[in-house]
Amino acid sequence: MNLEAINHTPKSSDAYAYGENTMHIRLRTAKDDVSAIELVYGIKYDWMNHKKVSMKKILTDELYDYYQTNLELSDTRIGYYFKITGKEESICYTEAGFLEEFPDDMSYCYFFQYPYINKADIHKEPEWVKEAVFYQIFVERFFNGDENNSPKELVPWDSEPKPKSFYGGDLKGILLKLDYLQELGINGIYLTPIFESPSNHKYDTVDYKEIDKYFGDKKVFQEFVRKAHEKGIKIILDAVFNHCSEYFPPFLEVKEKGKASPYYDWFCIEEFPLSKKPLNYQTFGYVSYMPKLNTSNPELKKYLFDTVRYWMEEFEIDGWRLDVSDEIDHHFWREFRNLVKEIKEDAVIIGENWHNAYPWLMGDQFDSVMNYPVTKLCLDYFARRTMKAKEFEKGLGTLLMRYTDQVNEAMLNLLDSHDTERFLYACSENKEKLKNAAAFLFGYRGIPCTYYGTEIGMTGAYDPGCRRGFDWKQENWDMDLYIFYKKLIQIRKTEMALKDGTISFHSNDNLFVMKRSFREENIYIVINNTEEEKHYQLPDKEFTAISELLSGQTYGDNAVDKSFLVPADSALYLKTV
Amino acid sequence: MNLEAINHTPKSSDAYAYGENTMHIRLRTAKDDVSAIELVYGIKYDWMNHKKVSMKKILTDELYDYYQTNLELSDTRIGYYFKITGKEESICYTEAGFLEEFPDDMSYCYFFQYPYINKADIHKEPEWVKEAVFYQIFVERFFNGDENNSPKELVPWDSEPKPKSFYGGDLKGILLKLDYLQELGINGIYLTPIFESPSNHKYDTVDYKEIDKYFGDKKVFQEFVRKAHEKGIKIILDAVFNHCSEYFPPFLEVKEKGKASPYYDWFCIEEFPLSKKPLNYQTFGYVSYMPKLNTSNPELKKYLFDTVRYWMEEFEIDGWRLDVSDEIDHHFWREFRNLVKEIKEDAVIIGENWHNAYPWLMGDQFDSVMNYPVTKLCLDYFARRTMKAKEFEKGLGTLLMRYTDQVNEAMLNLLDSHDTERFLYACSENKEKLKNAAAFLFGYRGIPCTYYGTEIGMTGAYDPGCRRGFDWKQENWDMDLYIFYKKLIQIRKTEMALKDGTISFHSNDNLFVMKRSFREENIYIVINNTEEEKHYQLPDKEFTAISELLSGQTYGDNAVDKSFLVPADSALYLKTV
Repeated sequence: MNLEAINHTPKSSDAYAYGENTMHIRLRTAKDDVSAIELVYGIKYDWMNHKKVSMKKILTDELYDYYQTNLELSDTRIGYYFKITGKEESICYTEAGFLEEFPDDMSYCYFFQYPYINKADIHKEPEWVKEAVFYQIFVERFFNGDENNSPKELVPWDSEPKPKSFYGGDLKGILLKLDYLQELGINGIYLTPIFESPSNHKYDTVDYKEIDKYFGDKKVFQEFVRKAHEKGIKIILDAVFNHCSEYFPPFLEVKEKGKASPYYDWFCIEEFPLSKKPLNYQTFGYVSYMPKLNTSNPELKKYLFDTVRYWMEEFEIDGWRLDVSDEIDHHFWREFRNLVKEIKEDAVIIGENWHNAYPWLMGDQFDSVMNYPVTKLCLDYFARRTMKAKEFEKGLGTLLMRYTDQVNEAMLNLLDSHDTERFLYACSENKEKLKNAAAFLFGYRGIPCTYYGTEIGMTGAYDPGCRRGFDWKQENWDMDLYIFYKKLIQIRKTEMALKDGTISFHSNDNLFVMKRSFREENIYIVINNTEEEKHYQLPDKEFTAISELLSGQTYGDNAVDKSFLVPADSALYLKTV
Repeated sequence: MNLEAINHTPKSSDAYAYGENTMHIRLRTAKDDVSAIELVYGIKYDWMNHKKVSMKKILTDELYDYYQTNLELSDTRIGYYFKITGKEESICYTEAGFLEEFPDDMSYCYFFQYPYINKADIHKEPEWVKEAVFYQIFVERFFNGDENNSPKELVPWDSEPKPKSFYGGDLKGILLKLDYLQELGINGIYLTPIFESPSNHKYDTVDYKEIDKYFGDKKVFQEFVRKAHEKGIKIILDAVFNHCSEYFPPFLEVKEKGKASPYYDWFCIEEFPLSKKPLNYQTFGYVSYMPKLNTSNPELKKYLFDTVRYWMEEFEIDGWRLDVSDEIDHHFWREFRNLVKEIKEDAVIIGENWHNAYPWLMGDQFDSVMNYPVTKLCLDYFARRTMKAKEFEKGLGTLLMRYTDQVNEAMLNLLDSHDTERFLYACSENKEKLKNAAAFLFGYRGIPCTYYGTEIGMTGAYDPGCRRGFDWKQENWDMDLYIFYKKLIQIRKTEMALKDGTISFHSNDNLFVMKRSFREENIYIVINNTEEEKHYQLPDKEFTAISELLSGQTYGDNAVDKSFLVPADSALYLKTV
């Protein structure tokens, strides 16, 4: 047995509270290395009445197998260890290492411990995230709904974007297009920043309490949120707290007065007076027009938290996406969470963390992050085809095991965004590849998020190419793609197995196969990401009816042994009940 | 190469801020499996200027080798990966898995990341903990300094304790014995609870704002803290916030009025009216006289935090030991830390966590915990001799790698306490074994803590045996042991290598060898835990003088090849400069 490969970290994503009486316990072993695992657990004050339960292998990746057991407990103060049976030997894995036999009379010195589930510590996600289907809008490029508030020097709506060009997209534009979004079926919108800012992207804020004048005013924003809510659509704003604009008035004052300004500690300044060359204050990246904020300063915190309260209380927004969230201190985010959840218990908090974000996802900071590692896998598997189905599912396995189940259920899964190339562009405009990736994304665990226009076939390279104006001339749309997206969204919102089901993978050399299960229902998402047709036969024969959700075709239980044709570059959603 | 054994967890005790510009990076591999590791790191916004540094193997345990590199950085926003060379092959270990070659042009998708060191997130320990030598006093059993406040039914001071017997020890007693403690050399006292409570141990509090009447009053406590401070001794109180006494007035009211009492949510009650049989409210363990407090209730929190502020502000205590700290919610502890550090920046917070306490030791909650896993190793190696020197050092290696260096420097290391058998008792009264264990403890990284009386040879089984009255008749003391303890304490407080040095292990089959190093100074702590004499020759020949600190004997550099005699059951502290 590869003992060195075996791992369980107590009180982590390996052992966590899912509910007040529900605990999830995971164990990792080397791949195909063990034949059985028993979880032995008992109340730590009453060890002699311990119980055993056989653990189930739930996922696997390149190197490891992952086992999980979900415990329902009346007393959550437990000790536990793992009895691992390999090909020949059997061994006990404890907090004090590996033992031949577990010393029940000294259990306290050896077992792993979950001391107690305190309700306050449970990472509770908003209930609605399981139903959520998001749409990301880069505001300046969606629709110009009010030409009166447009910048003077507009470029033509259909021209190729340059880093500093303005198109005139605004909030009124989104308001006017809410019917389009409702028709598409999405029920959540993440807006890139809307506060006063000189740039087109507005990630350099000048006034956190004002709507940018080119985007509209508070009245139109209020009407937008109200109308969206009427249509059942949640609104998430972009919180840009890592840095501000160089025209942010406190920064201007510090530039002028140096340490004499009461704001000098709002920034991360290495030397006075301020200088851009050499840069002697901290910034986002090396962008001198985006000075880094010192989020430990109490007055700055008060200012930012007041703005959080203002937009939540006055405009009833439903949550925040957090820009460059990993470079801001954890204390700030903990206070932020307390505030946000106090104002609106079911508001959602989504970080922009491109790397392993576990330290932010333990229940005290974010609910979720933008799932760029899944984006990367989708690019490799669907767009570039440098990865095979089995490698893709192994990659997903690794990522799913980073976080708790409730975090996985709330991850913001995306194929593209304002910070990537368009997915269709990465597919060299091969829309079948995009459709396959979308079929995956809408079937995967977590919130699917569509970047504006991906659904009609918009393309474009990395910024600024990915920020073209939405093409409202329907004759230019890829209607096949659009209808496919609508169908996926509708299926996603209808099927319990997709909203709240467990996930497992069953790919073979030809096909990617993901199974979502909820009670008696199973949906097999079968994707043929090759240029040849393939066949697929369901491994599960315990069902009375089967339907293919994308086509609507149904079969009786006489389809038990049916071999389904999966054409080249296509996907099936096979549902059994 | 055993790839499955290799592990690095970003933003954890594997990658953490030690100072504003200092980052420690660790990597784990299977034991004796790799020949070299390079850490490749660069500013994430400027990857092409990345650097390489060779990592050093710092510790080892049963299964793994641990490597560490301490980076000094002017810009702390880094990406990194590991280039691992095995016996034949070489491989890159990244956040996205193992790769033959690292793709520098897509570095952002592959490297591990430490996004930025925010000052607020650095786990800063009080400076004084490195100098600290603690002494734990079970107040009721140390000295009866004021017979006027003694309980009526006292048992004789030298009688064998029973669970409910009273001896009359009090605060005046400790005040009167401060000279003894100063003479012994300790500079920190951890007192078991002193607040009003019906029991002798006082872990069941009735009034958190009053000194127990049998222990004295606020005036004597104030004088005690003042005198201790004059002598350079810090005072730590026991915070018992997990539960209270069944006579705690709010609990009494809830017992009487049920849900009509405003205090009903201060406790964890399953059903009204309250009943002990069957127990329908939560308690510590199953102890019905210790009802569990609901530390999420805002009014209760205010009450407890007010008491924290009161004892810290009015009496200037230096920190808290936290009873049953692992069963209280993390939110409570985060608020507690903010409060404590706001009142006294260099106060210390020490949890009572018997198991892996990493989730409490990430900088936002505790500074340290009672190091019971080290106690357990000492029992196995020194007292019971069921473990060999090399196993002992492997056990220590595992434990040191659980936490960051700053936490290891502040761990409260102990051989015994009010919750264990006396160490001498576990040694079957063989004091040479105790002396060896003490020689280890005072040389080890972290705060050595002596349980009252261990230094004079007090013995006794698990509670109540370990809670005998301190024997003040000097003729009964083991003077050899006492002098040994004094010597160890004096060395510990004098030697920079012990206070602030790095640690490494160099045991052989016969001897336990631990090396502490600070600049040019090294101290080799060589312990012969067998019944036969052994010899030891220093591995390091780069020194100009050598001394044995326990005996005071010195040697010149002609002792380079000297073989030191280590008698049976004894220890050497060999210092080279």
